[in-house]
Amino acid sequence: MRPSIVLFGDSITEESFGEGGWGAHLANHYSRSGDVVLRGYSGYNTRWASLVADRAFSAIPASAAVAAVTVFFGANDASLPDRASAFQHVPLPEYRDNLRAICALLRARWPSAALILVTPPPVDERGRVRFPRNGDASGLPERTNEAAGRYARACVEVARQRGLRAIDLWSRMQEFPGWETAFLRDGLHLTPTGNRLLFEEVVFALRDANLSLEALPADLPLCSDIDPDNAVRCFEEE
Amino acid sequence: MRPSIVLFGDSITEESFGEGGWGAHLANHYSRSGDVVLRGYSGYNTRWASLVADRAFSAIPASAAVAAVTVFFGANDASLPDRASAFQHVPLPEYRDNLRAICALLRARWPSAALILVTPPPVDERGRVRFPRNGDASGLPERTNEAAGRYARACVEVARQRGLRAIDLWSRMQEFPGWETAFLRDGLHLTPTGNRLLFEEVVFALRDANLSLEALPADLPLCSDIDPDNAVRCFEEE
Repeated sequence: MRPSIVLFGDSITEESFGEGGWGAHLANHYSRSGDVVLRGYSGYNTRWASLVADRAFSAIPASAAVAAVTVFFGANDASLPDRASAFQHVPLPEYRDNLRAICALLRARWPSAALILVTPPPVDERGRVRFPRNGDASGLPERTNEAAGRYARACVEVARQRGLRAIDLWSRMQEFPGWETAFLRDGLHLTPTGNRLLFEEVVFALRDANLSLEALPADLPLCSDIDPDNAVRCFEEE
Repeated sequence: MRPSIVLFGDSITEESFGEGGWGAHLANHYSRSGDVVLRGYSGYNTRWASLVADRAFSAIPASAAVAAVTVFFGANDASLPDRASAFQHVPLPEYRDNLRAICALLRARWPSAALILVTPPPVDERGRVRFPRNGDASGLPERTNEAAGRYARACVEVARQRGLRAIDLWSRMQEFPGWETAFLRDGLHLTPTGNRLLFEEVVFALRDANLSLEALPADLPLCSDIDPDNAVRCFEEE
């Protein structure tokens, strides 16, 4: 049975099927071996995500062959509590608890699915100030890279405690000089190059979970395997 | 319940989540209101598709809210019977019968789904000769635009007889001067511009089937509708 990979997250997940997006890359990569299911909710933090998770997954049958779920929240939780996006802020201890609750819910729903936690990306504060939220004339960024880093470390820690895979996007991106504009288009959301990096990290994590292209059977015979002299025989059921 | 839109077809469907692909555009368009499910099988004609349709859909529960299915075959059926892709050729009367059988199967599986037949695209024979199949040194194209047109007309006719929607991609593309290279990258498969045209035609057809963005409820509250002073209340279940 063709497995599904569910992408659960905020705007960076919701827009992942845009031009050059990491979700579209994944769907293309697994075009003949798995379904990529989008559950991205722009602006959401872990508090709201944990409240709605059951409803978000209600259209995916519990019997579906969900092989992996990416859980990618924190960019909104890490909004500063005294700046323009304060209403999205979630305190760090609650962020940890909410992540654990979301993972417990996923574990109960699909016991054999690989859960992959993704940390928030780094924040380029200059980029955030260049793209201010409507009505915010303070000139101060509503997120800082330092705050995002604390949430990223907490995310990695929760994954370690629960024996789950994690993609430390915050650290990984900052390994590259020029990450601020190479990977981020507005100081927070991903450029096509940033999307490509995340796609590759997710493919590595899925390979680690035995969900590489090589490990998954192709859905129906590949054209290159069809005998031109007796094509129909290739489609006979075993 | 969040509806699904299933894309069933050949390589032009299988590669529809590549860069600028029509499937990825659709998934992005419906990111908060529907799931786009990829069932593309490169090289397949309607004979093979009708043999495997049940298996292709086996991972999609019969109880799933499948609201629409695009059925997009014919480019391979229309391969000439005496050229390099002869093993993919299906005679025109059988193409009609196979299309009808596929639609009957879909109708039985998801009685309320809108079925949208898509004709094969036009063929740019010069483009095909520039990208010959491996081992084909004849210098003759394995497909012609005239043959593709006969299959396109048959597809439109089947849709009309069955009361289904059709996208006449063969005719639509040829309305534009320069369609040969603007829409086709190798005389057959779509460029990003060709993908964009097909995406728009599918959106029109879905709108006609009452599946526009405006007609579908958003999956969970939009961030712009959340009361900053009492966000959690927005997530209370009705």
